[in-house]
Amino acid sequence: MPGFKTKKLSSLSRQPQPGYVARGRIWVDKDGELYIGGGRARLLERIDEFGSIAAAARSMGLGYRNAWLWVETANRLAATPLVEKNAGGVGGGCARLTSEGRRVIIQYRELRAKFEDFLEQVIQK
Amino acid sequence: MPGFKTKKLSSLSRQPQPGYVARGRIWVDKDGELYIGGGRARLLERIDEFGSIAAAARSMGLGYRNAWLWVETANRLAATPLVEKNAGGVGGGCARLTSEGRRVIIQYRELRAKFEDFLEQVIQK
Repeated sequence: MPGFKTKKLSSLSRQPQPGYVARGRIWVDKDGELYIGGGRARLLERIDEFGSIAAAARSMGLGYRNAWLWVETANRLAATPLVEKNAGGVGGGCARLTSEGRRVIIQYRELRAKFEDFLEQVIQK
Repeated sequence: MPGFKTKKLSSLSRQPQPGYVARGRIWVDKDGELYIGGGRARLLERIDEFGSIAAAARSMGLGYRNAWLWVETANRLAATPLVEKNAGGVGGGCARLTSEGRRVIIQYRELRAKFEDFLEQVIQK
């Protein structure tokens, strides 16, 4: 995927640090259902990396059925599908991110970056 | 507790709403350990309301041992204790928030309010 580097999302909630540190999680619902959050964004990144839902799920220690359901839900909630699935054999076929899928990852990364800034500045006062 | 109204913390992550809505959780670690978050803040509020860890825990459907451990941890991490426990009998004795405990709840509420504002404005663009 030229021009689209998969930069791993940093964890906002795990690295221990001395003193008082604000931590958090952030996600986006659409019509009351989870649309995109840390796990789903990572799955989309991995699908882009591996070209397969099965391989992406395996790389995250996520069950294939779960991953498949996440993709189904995200595709259903999105204006246009985020992941294009090509019917395959036993291995689950291949899959690729659509341009909408790429846009959603980029937007979620921006949201995370803003949230990281918020967490960094909110506690110093 | 005159002058100290227990305003319940609203849930930042539960009410369903139409369209895209940013949701999240926020908490504060001290030296890499959970210091204050939604559950612990609620427990402190309930201790203030009921004057007892056991009653506070029961009102939240939280086990007494768990609640007691949360209080222990928060007291250990705080500059000065947040909850003052008076040794009691079978019921677990009584407990009350210290002024530091009250300060921490107020600070956490402020953090939540800022986070709510952040979540509201971050997605409209």
